[in-house]
Amino acid sequence: MASSSSRSGAGAGNEESPAMRRLRRLSLHLLQPFDRPAEQLALAACAGARRVEGGAEVSAALAAYLRGRHRATQARVFEFFRDRPDLQTPVEQTTAAHRDLCFRQLRSLVRDAGVRPLSLMAADPAEYFAVMEAAGGVDISLGVKFGVQYSLWGGSILNLGTKKHRDKFFDGIDNLDIPGCFAMTELHHGSNVQALQTTAAFDPVTDEFIINTPNDGAIKWWIGNAAVHGKYATVFARLILPLQGKGGTPADMGIHAFIVPIRDLETHAVLPGIEINDCGHKIGLNGVDNGALRFRSVRIPRDNLLNRFGDVSRDGKYTSSLPTINKRFAATLGELVGGRVGIAYSSVGVLKVAVTIATRYALLRQQFGPPKQPEISVLDYQSHQHKLMPMLASSYAFHFATIYLVDKYSEMKKTNDEDVMADVHVLSSGLKAYITSYTAKSISICRESCGGHGYAAVNRFGALRNDHDIFQTFEGDNTVLLQQVAGDLLKQYQEKFKGGTLSVTWNYLRDSMSTYLSQPNPVTARWEGEDHLRDPNFQLDAFRYRTSRLLHSVAARLQKHSKTLGGFGAWNRCLNHLLTLAESHIESVILAKFIESVKSCPDEKTRKLLKLVCDLYALDRIWKDIGTYRNVDYVAPNKAKVCGCHSHTATSHKGAELDSDSSFSLQAIHKLTDYLSYQVRLVARELVDAFDLPDLIIRAPIGMQSEAYAQYTQHVGF
Amino acid sequence: MASSSSRSGAGAGNEESPAMRRLRRLSLHLLQPFDRPAEQLALAACAGARRVEGGAEVSAALAAYLRGRHRATQARVFEFFRDRPDLQTPVEQTTAAHRDLCFRQLRSLVRDAGVRPLSLMAADPAEYFAVMEAAGGVDISLGVKFGVQYSLWGGSILNLGTKKHRDKFFDGIDNLDIPGCFAMTELHHGSNVQALQTTAAFDPVTDEFIINTPNDGAIKWWIGNAAVHGKYATVFARLILPLQGKGGTPADMGIHAFIVPIRDLETHAVLPGIEINDCGHKIGLNGVDNGALRFRSVRIPRDNLLNRFGDVSRDGKYTSSLPTINKRFAATLGELVGGRVGIAYSSVGVLKVAVTIATRYALLRQQFGPPKQPEISVLDYQSHQHKLMPMLASSYAFHFATIYLVDKYSEMKKTNDEDVMADVHVLSSGLKAYITSYTAKSISICRESCGGHGYAAVNRFGALRNDHDIFQTFEGDNTVLLQQVAGDLLKQYQEKFKGGTLSVTWNYLRDSMSTYLSQPNPVTARWEGEDHLRDPNFQLDAFRYRTSRLLHSVAARLQKHSKTLGGFGAWNRCLNHLLTLAESHIESVILAKFIESVKSCPDEKTRKLLKLVCDLYALDRIWKDIGTYRNVDYVAPNKAKVCGCHSHTATSHKGAELDSDSSFSLQAIHKLTDYLSYQVRLVARELVDAFDLPDLIIRAPIGMQSEAYAQYTQHVGF
Repeated sequence: MASSSSRSGAGAGNEESPAMRRLRRLSLHLLQPFDRPAEQLALAACAGARRVEGGAEVSAALAAYLRGRHRATQARVFEFFRDRPDLQTPVEQTTAAHRDLCFRQLRSLVRDAGVRPLSLMAADPAEYFAVMEAAGGVDISLGVKFGVQYSLWGGSILNLGTKKHRDKFFDGIDNLDIPGCFAMTELHHGSNVQALQTTAAFDPVTDEFIINTPNDGAIKWWIGNAAVHGKYATVFARLILPLQGKGGTPADMGIHAFIVPIRDLETHAVLPGIEINDCGHKIGLNGVDNGALRFRSVRIPRDNLLNRFGDVSRDGKYTSSLPTINKRFAATLGELVGGRVGIAYSSVGVLKVAVTIATRYALLRQQFGPPKQPEISVLDYQSHQHKLMPMLASSYAFHFATIYLVDKYSEMKKTNDEDVMADVHVLSSGLKAYITSYTAKSISICRESCGGHGYAAVNRFGALRNDHDIFQTFEGDNTVLLQQVAGDLLKQYQEKFKGGTLSVTWNYLRDSMSTYLSQPNPVTARWEGEDHLRDPNFQLDAFRYRTSRLLHSVAARLQKHSKTLGGFGAWNRCLNHLLTLAESHIESVILAKFIESVKSCPDEKTRKLLKLVCDLYALDRIWKDIGTYRNVDYVAPNKAKVCGCHSHTATSHKGAELDSDSSFSLQAIHKLTDYLSYQVRLVARELVDAFDLPDLIIRAPIGMQSEAYAQYTQHVGF
Repeated sequence: MASSSSRSGAGAGNEESPAMRRLRRLSLHLLQPFDRPAEQLALAACAGARRVEGGAEVSAALAAYLRGRHRATQARVFEFFRDRPDLQTPVEQTTAAHRDLCFRQLRSLVRDAGVRPLSLMAADPAEYFAVMEAAGGVDISLGVKFGVQYSLWGGSILNLGTKKHRDKFFDGIDNLDIPGCFAMTELHHGSNVQALQTTAAFDPVTDEFIINTPNDGAIKWWIGNAAVHGKYATVFARLILPLQGKGGTPADMGIHAFIVPIRDLETHAVLPGIEINDCGHKIGLNGVDNGALRFRSVRIPRDNLLNRFGDVSRDGKYTSSLPTINKRFAATLGELVGGRVGIAYSSVGVLKVAVTIATRYALLRQQFGPPKQPEISVLDYQSHQHKLMPMLASSYAFHFATIYLVDKYSEMKKTNDEDVMADVHVLSSGLKAYITSYTAKSISICRESCGGHGYAAVNRFGALRNDHDIFQTFEGDNTVLLQQVAGDLLKQYQEKFKGGTLSVTWNYLRDSMSTYLSQPNPVTARWEGEDHLRDPNFQLDAFRYRTSRLLHSVAARLQKHSKTLGGFGAWNRCLNHLLTLAESHIESVILAKFIESVKSCPDEKTRKLLKLVCDLYALDRIWKDIGTYRNVDYVAPNKAKVCGCHSHTATSHKGAELDSDSSFSLQAIHKLTDYLSYQVRLVARELVDAFDLPDLIIRAPIGMQSEAYAQYTQHVGF
């Protein structure tokens, strides 16, 4: 191998380190599958050098590029908690103790560290999300408690209320004098918010709303901060106006949000007419106190309606700047998008922690090896690289995508531009769904890849998985959110053919949909060589081709089935297809942002490294979904183009020959994915170090940068 | 729809039930994708009837067929615990309390219920495993504690010891007077057992072995029963014989098992020279007390060597019926196969519980619906059917496969036949790995499909997932076990070409490998119609074709790479390919057993139902892995057959046309999978009821057969 001399050269002079020895051993049996001496030399030299010198620099340069402008903010949060052992989360504790600790963590962050989250949210959402992610690093329960108090309870006041509400509540929420709840979900209704059954009837005599839980199914359920700490709740309920309906009946004005005091500000006693029960022990997030609330004719002043999008006058008349119930509902829910942005962002944080622990342990752990030779690192096994390296690449991809999402969100809050708003709505839904599903699966893979030691609670995977699990569900069930993405794509698709405008992120539909639809599949058709597969243009083309085909075919299927099944039935009949479409689109967005981030990286060395990671992300995704890539029309209405080939009968034309015929490019993609996983493995340590997560956040003994085994035996008592 | 009249007819006379209304509503928008009036009528009539009458009978008939001869045994275990509320596992408890409870559960099962597990194991392994699965239903920790005491500690005495050991320990283990441990794994070595470092040096002066932990990496780790309850441990250590090596040095005779007392039988004090630390809180299974042991020159009598496969005489000479260290090692580990059989079996039990809860809740839960119509069950969504129905089908498939495995294991214990032994070894490895990986993933999908309510600890998914998680790792890491399967297939493959004998399960290799290799891919090539896709012969052909192709291609790749990389390097280079091969083979075995079980079902109605479930299992597997099916040669050495077509250039031949050309059969498989999921959904309630798991085992309020929401609100305190 061309590189072995440079490697041993680097190690010359002092005794060869175990890492160097392993690397040299590796080179004996892991030959490169591709024959590119130039690049091999470069990468191998880099790999050789980094073990002796330069590794820390590579990580530092990469970390600086990743963190951007909020690095100092997060470091401040980490340092604060590092210096407060009394606030650190133990490996095992009761639910009651965890809730107490979590509240103390949040209060200390606000009062001792002087963080003012609601002010941050108003001034600089990107910094707000950076603090929330850092808090989630300390304990995911803390991140969620933070989100309940600020994104949800505070966010409802900021975004659905008007000046009078902000004047009254802003400071108390910001400094945590007034812990509050966001009471939307009911026992029977989570995703279908429009079907909530809690009522808020206006009483014109007393100028009050009467909040009522009409049946058990309408009990507010899973309400964070409700079981123990909350003083107020923003309650989502159907606004009922007497005499405004047909023939003088009460009118149901749809879902609105109301501020309801639930506990006495002084005594903390639950207020009359309100019943609160504890939702109890959960799979995870037991630092957050979720409760269930029933209202029995609870009266609140008219001013407590959060009236930004609709108001009730003293004489019981409804006014709104928006014309219909549906538009008001959309505006109300639209303001809650910040929660999803935060979840997507924080989910990437969780993924980074899991990948860091698993990668470091896989580098440390040795098991088996060639006959009569020392054992090798488990990360040197192809199967282990296959499990972890694409995951590491995805962490990078998601990092850039969520940074972009946060920036878009900030832009939206600044400009209130309608196009940006629509864009952020769909983007936050899609990224939240896609990333949280990916992270949830990945934590399990990380646990399993760490074997028995991954099962020790102290090594974190249990808490990470259990706490993160619900990220897939709250603030919008992932399956429902992906349907919003698909729905939006179809709307855009229809508008394209009507000549309407398209929102920013989807521009490629306008630019190139026609091209994609007339082209052959780039994955099977435009194979030219392996440089081609690493060309970002090819990669984006492949992703977008798939999306375009899926969109085109599902639109046709929906149209066809609507005739017999109606809109709802047709949608349900195509549901799996629609979900695939949504995921495909989100992957395109993620790849596009990754490619941009690679291009705009100013440091050449760092840029090259990122390019390698980006290539792995792209090729791995293509390979993992090769079935869809080869069959993007698989569920299209029958419109098979028959092969014009004369010398074959139809029967002989199907079968093995077809498979073999295009197997060259498939094989190349597969081989290249394995190769890139191997290349990324050579810099895996640097890539996880660049996440720049302090030991306080990693915590797992087996995930420590050094002396991992010793820290582990010490933890157990040896 | 042809069935609507029969449905409303069945409901006539009394008020239409909500279930009937929903079914009728469903029929409006979920039309059948296939045009087969006869079968439609039969299934629809069955579906209509079951809601009014007969559903319970369908379930009962199916349950009777599933349970077989050990139903009464398991029922006895369930009844015992049902009547002992003091032994039921609470939703939240500390590790210390859980360990105490778990031990009391096991002791009561033995002493109060009069179960004698070790006697069962010796007399009828199938009944032993049935009891263990039932115990795991009560609490997975109990099942594992049971397994540690009996399969491992008891099993080591039974299978590795001789008469003197059985005479001394059998009764005490059986009645739990002597709780014991199985001390194999060390901090640095889990999978690579041959590299364990603990030593047992023979001292001919005192006629003792000296057990020693030479370094921290050799500390015995994760040893169940060690932290609190164990009195003895079977310790795996390198047998060292003084003066027997070259030139009079000590000889390392390889890994042997030794009985080491670790705590005083009376005082329970840890014995001198032994250091035990608590491995601490785990992700799950906290009812099991895992400890870490260090030995400092601990002396045990020579008789404590478990000497079935190798012995040391008074004068320090080694004797064995087996000629080499490797053969003795294989024999020793081979006897431990029972642990894997139990895990595979118990994993299916866990899967059934998870699928039952998720399916019942999906039937109950309604969300969204057509405009101005009532909401529909979430199980009526295509995406939800897609998540849960193939999983339900897999539970059935795995059920029959593990019953078969247990029978084979019993046969092996009875006959000691070498072929059966080899068969059981590979089959238990493969099924353990495949099933536990599937179950682990499925529990997460079940949780997510139950949304927020799936996150309440009381609804079980957390404990099931956390407790089951390590099933993927202990008693053999799944990735390592699959390699054993692949290794065995390759051995069989080589023997086939050498004309040797093949073991029973792999018979299809002998019978048909040549056929498969010369045939075109049945999935793409032999499409004839949808009846064909439901033909068990086609399905088995498809599964076996894939395995044969993968085996053939990986054998060629291994041969090619061995020349440059050596055996170990070549194996590593092909590792992902080998794992795919192993999974493919195991799927073939599972399908074959499922098809046999359908065929031998005596009751026609039950058989038809099982056939439907089996078809879904087969087609779903083909569809999920359609990429491999279409590209079984994807990693084969370049030997692409060029298409003999004259009228196309090579370039135009690749691309969209190829995809479309065979899209008809792919589309048919996909459509049929969706259709079968829909059909299985219609009998989903009956299929989960047929698992016949009492409420005590299900426990989750949302998984109850009736009044689920009410049980849930009551649990929370309303």
